[in-house]
Amino acid sequence: MNIILASTSTLFGGEYLEYLKEELIQLYAGIDEIVFIPFARPGGISYDEYTAKASSFFEKIGIKVKGLHEFNDKAEALNNAKGFFTGGGNTFLLVKTLHEENLMSVLKTNVECGKPYLGCSAGSNIGGQNMKTTNDMPIVYPPSFECMGLVPFNINPHYLDPNPELKHNGETRETRIKEFLTQNDLKVVGLREGNWIRRKGDEITVEGAELTRIFEKDKVPYEIEPGTEL
Amino acid sequence: MNIILASTSTLFGGEYLEYLKEELIQLYAGIDEIVFIPFARPGGISYDEYTAKASSFFEKIGIKVKGLHEFNDKAEALNNAKGFFTGGGNTFLLVKTLHEENLMSVLKTNVECGKPYLGCSAGSNIGGQNMKTTNDMPIVYPPSFECMGLVPFNINPHYLDPNPELKHNGETRETRIKEFLTQNDLKVVGLREGNWIRRKGDEITVEGAELTRIFEKDKVPYEIEPGTEL
Repeated sequence: MNIILASTSTLFGGEYLEYLKEELIQLYAGIDEIVFIPFARPGGISYDEYTAKASSFFEKIGIKVKGLHEFNDKAEALNNAKGFFTGGGNTFLLVKTLHEENLMSVLKTNVECGKPYLGCSAGSNIGGQNMKTTNDMPIVYPPSFECMGLVPFNINPHYLDPNPELKHNGETRETRIKEFLTQNDLKVVGLREGNWIRRKGDEITVEGAELTRIFEKDKVPYEIEPGTEL
Repeated sequence: MNIILASTSTLFGGEYLEYLKEELIQLYAGIDEIVFIPFARPGGISYDEYTAKASSFFEKIGIKVKGLHEFNDKAEALNNAKGFFTGGGNTFLLVKTLHEENLMSVLKTNVECGKPYLGCSAGSNIGGQNMKTTNDMPIVYPPSFECMGLVPFNINPHYLDPNPELKHNGETRETRIKEFLTQNDLKVVGLREGNWIRRKGDEITVEGAELTRIFEKDKVPYEIEPGTEL
């Protein structure tokens, strides 16, 4: 497999996907067209608008982008595609749409065959075993929470450390992930913004500038350095 | 109906339920025993521990607390109860358990008959039409997101204003609720900590010290004063 699962598409103060540019040139080496999956619709943006946004970045590195919504036969479009990018937004909307159109398993099969895959945020969540560690609001009811399982763990994108100054009793991210571990025995990778997971064949590492926080059942959470194998 | 749906159980720096004490004396007037619904299990706490926590507050106001998990026939326990309290925690866990044990509709019927009901956080979410505006992580998959609909809108507990200083690209609460409104046409009450919804018969008001932020489809979000009818 040849995969990047990124915490976020955009660093604070940066341009869309800019911080990943060199990585993406390598990920998509030899490929001049990819299929974009716009179903997460951040802020309710239209599929066309979202595809145009992805396109405006990818034209800088010589890659044409086609939105998956543009095809009548979407399964065939995935089978014919050379590579994929799933954008962020609402994970519930993304997973609902992929399951209802029977595309989750088609996408999984194509990525497992070695076609390059980039996910950001919600698009990274669907690379995990299931979507039970998303941060998103459950604005729609998906027929299942199961995802592609391109990596043998779950991802928590936009991982955010507790803010000791916040006078608020909502749960911290760490509390939420620990609640997940009371109900599930599965490793969770708390991916801070600026970090990404890189899978090349069977090698899976975490990359980027920040430490990454790992949560496992009945263990104290711990931090790993960029470059560490997962 | 006779209901309080509170944003939080505990104010920053305060004791469990203390800020609601006078309200709760009125809500449960004439009642010496309530059934506590501990299924949201904050932080994975046991049902017994959670019930003991609720009990230690309610004994100060002369009310005995029985945990719903203590009964073999839970539907009968709800039918025989004089009043209810559903504590906070994880809304997915709470809703899953209530649906799987066929208790959501039994609880709804009993509250609609006029028995007093207090919900905090997740316990307030289930008073709304559905749980699609919870902040919680989807750590388990409920058979449905539908809730009791004790009020004709949805609630977002622990409503938190955007923090302009945060250098983070995760969605703000307002962005999430606006995403909900792209997929659903239902009023959302953004309930800041310290505020609660009070329903007495057909009158529904918002109470507490803070303004409350209201979100409706195709409208600019707006603020209402404590005491305003909903």
